[in-house]
Amino acid sequence: MRGVTMHAPGDVRVEDREDPAIIEPTDAIIRLAATCICGSDLWPYRGIDKLGEPVPMGHEYAGIVEQAGSEVANIKPGDFVIGSFFASDNTCEICRAGYQTSCIHRQLVGGAQAQYLRVPLADGTLVATPGRPDAGLVPGFLAASDVLGTGWFAAVAAEAGPGKTVAVVGDGAVGLLGVLAARQLGAERVIAMSRHEPRQKLALEFGATDIVTERGDQGVAAIKELTGGLGAHSVIEAVGTQESMMQAIRSARPGGHVGYVGVAHDVQLPGQELFFSHVHLHGGPAPVRQYLPRLIDLIWDQAIDPGKVFDLELPLEAAAEGYQAMDERRAIKVLLRP
Amino acid sequence: MRGVTMHAPGDVRVEDREDPAIIEPTDAIIRLAATCICGSDLWPYRGIDKLGEPVPMGHEYAGIVEQAGSEVANIKPGDFVIGSFFASDNTCEICRAGYQTSCIHRQLVGGAQAQYLRVPLADGTLVATPGRPDAGLVPGFLAASDVLGTGWFAAVAAEAGPGKTVAVVGDGAVGLLGVLAARQLGAERVIAMSRHEPRQKLALEFGATDIVTERGDQGVAAIKELTGGLGAHSVIEAVGTQESMMQAIRSARPGGHVGYVGVAHDVQLPGQELFFSHVHLHGGPAPVRQYLPRLIDLIWDQAIDPGKVFDLELPLEAAAEGYQAMDERRAIKVLLRP
Repeated sequence: MRGVTMHAPGDVRVEDREDPAIIEPTDAIIRLAATCICGSDLWPYRGIDKLGEPVPMGHEYAGIVEQAGSEVANIKPGDFVIGSFFASDNTCEICRAGYQTSCIHRQLVGGAQAQYLRVPLADGTLVATPGRPDAGLVPGFLAASDVLGTGWFAAVAAEAGPGKTVAVVGDGAVGLLGVLAARQLGAERVIAMSRHEPRQKLALEFGATDIVTERGDQGVAAIKELTGGLGAHSVIEAVGTQESMMQAIRSARPGGHVGYVGVAHDVQLPGQELFFSHVHLHGGPAPVRQYLPRLIDLIWDQAIDPGKVFDLELPLEAAAEGYQAMDERRAIKVLLRP
Repeated sequence: MRGVTMHAPGDVRVEDREDPAIIEPTDAIIRLAATCICGSDLWPYRGIDKLGEPVPMGHEYAGIVEQAGSEVANIKPGDFVIGSFFASDNTCEICRAGYQTSCIHRQLVGGAQAQYLRVPLADGTLVATPGRPDAGLVPGFLAASDVLGTGWFAAVAAEAGPGKTVAVVGDGAVGLLGVLAARQLGAERVIAMSRHEPRQKLALEFGATDIVTERGDQGVAAIKELTGGLGAHSVIEAVGTQESMMQAIRSARPGGHVGYVGVAHDVQLPGQELFFSHVHLHGGPAPVRQYLPRLIDLIWDQAIDPGKVFDLELPLEAAAEGYQAMDERRAIKVLLRP
């Protein structure tokens, strides 16, 4: 089969590699209907995360079950399924508490930018749609695999809800879907922080009520200005830098909640400032599995259309072009068709 | 009147100073029934917090209202009252959300190690007991002013409750009262981390079910050992150092809650470790005012006896001896009688 491998920063190739096979009886093999490039794939692409050897890329997937191991009971060949970047048993105490990405048996899923993918712990990881979806719904289901699930977790961690004002730091796909999630969770007001016109437009389509173009201290001042000097009740952080984390913490009011899902890179939080900020801080790798049933229903019923974050669609063979487009911020998120 | 002043690290004196007077019509003057020395008073005593000029010490207080300003409506001369280290209006949006220590009109209360004290924003700050308390209850009410209220907030921030295992990092008065608070909030199991026999004993009296004597990595390993390898659901941090914060974060399970109330000194939280820990982090200056009505009822009804944390009682004139005893950890907490 064909799959995407990163050899070095900026060096992405589509290559032949062996078809995946069932290894454990709890595995499933899926044929990808669509896959995509993640903002986090840009960390190694830009040389910020170090690569040892060439790495098969991709951790977002939706597709048809081709084969299921002998111990797989919940899904069967022919099902259209979605899973998350961490496989989980969904039965341990941590999973049952809703933190499947910290499952005691978790396994990282990799190599999803390909034609076929082996998914471990299939029963605990994959969720089937009610039926075979129309082609138009596939991008939405693919978004549920990571960016929508991650934006949703950020909104939950930030305790977005009725009566709340939510600020969103980061206008990538996760931040934009954080806007959508906050509105779905009932937030009264959602302030998207973005200086890029196409992203502002999508934020408004997803339900943002205000746009703030400033960032850093000016961004914080703008959020305070919009919230009677107090700060937002809820802040979603979807970048993962020192600047974005501090912008998020400083944008929240005392007693407010910051939900952070940007993978923290070289971030050090100053204890004393955090102490006196009085914020709640929660985040980490989004337990997407927890939200999949609800997200699948919303997409199936066409109540939400998270697939809109894909503003560039390419054949898998053109993956390198997709990485370039995202790196240069010409595309918000790139969908790849195997 | 007589009051305690710190002139330099290790240099604490009891001196004559002017009686406080009503300045704003919202002030009250109270005659202290008892006051005490706080663990946080040791930061400047040890030279870690820098002193500019001599500072009147003390921020914990319970006593009789002597005089109330013309706009004070909720309390009157003769009432026995308790307040917290931050005066608050108790009416702003932040106060109503339960964060009175971040009140938009907050004022630090200082100079409580004295015979008399001026308390600003008396209506929003002071809470009266149902009647004049017996002498035996005064230490408990004094504890409510800070250490009990702070331990209680830490337990709430750590979401201590039924079915939960709570670990407590720090065996000072706040940590010990965090044990008491966690049990009052219904926690099933409370693990006190202490290597000091008298403090272990008090932790057990306050409801600790387990004692762990190790600290740092060994302490974390011991908590994991006691919790099926997962970590505690809730962790109270009541020290405020880098080591204690990391011990707290690492002792919590994924999805668990860390409530931190030790005033963070030179603490830097590593973003990536925090991200993958999946913990909830909340803390800061405890909004004691929020809990005072409930705490006063519990003490009045003798359902709890937080006054037990005072293991040394001295006349105000012997304040310097009290500071020494706490600095050398000969006393858990020192009560001063004006």
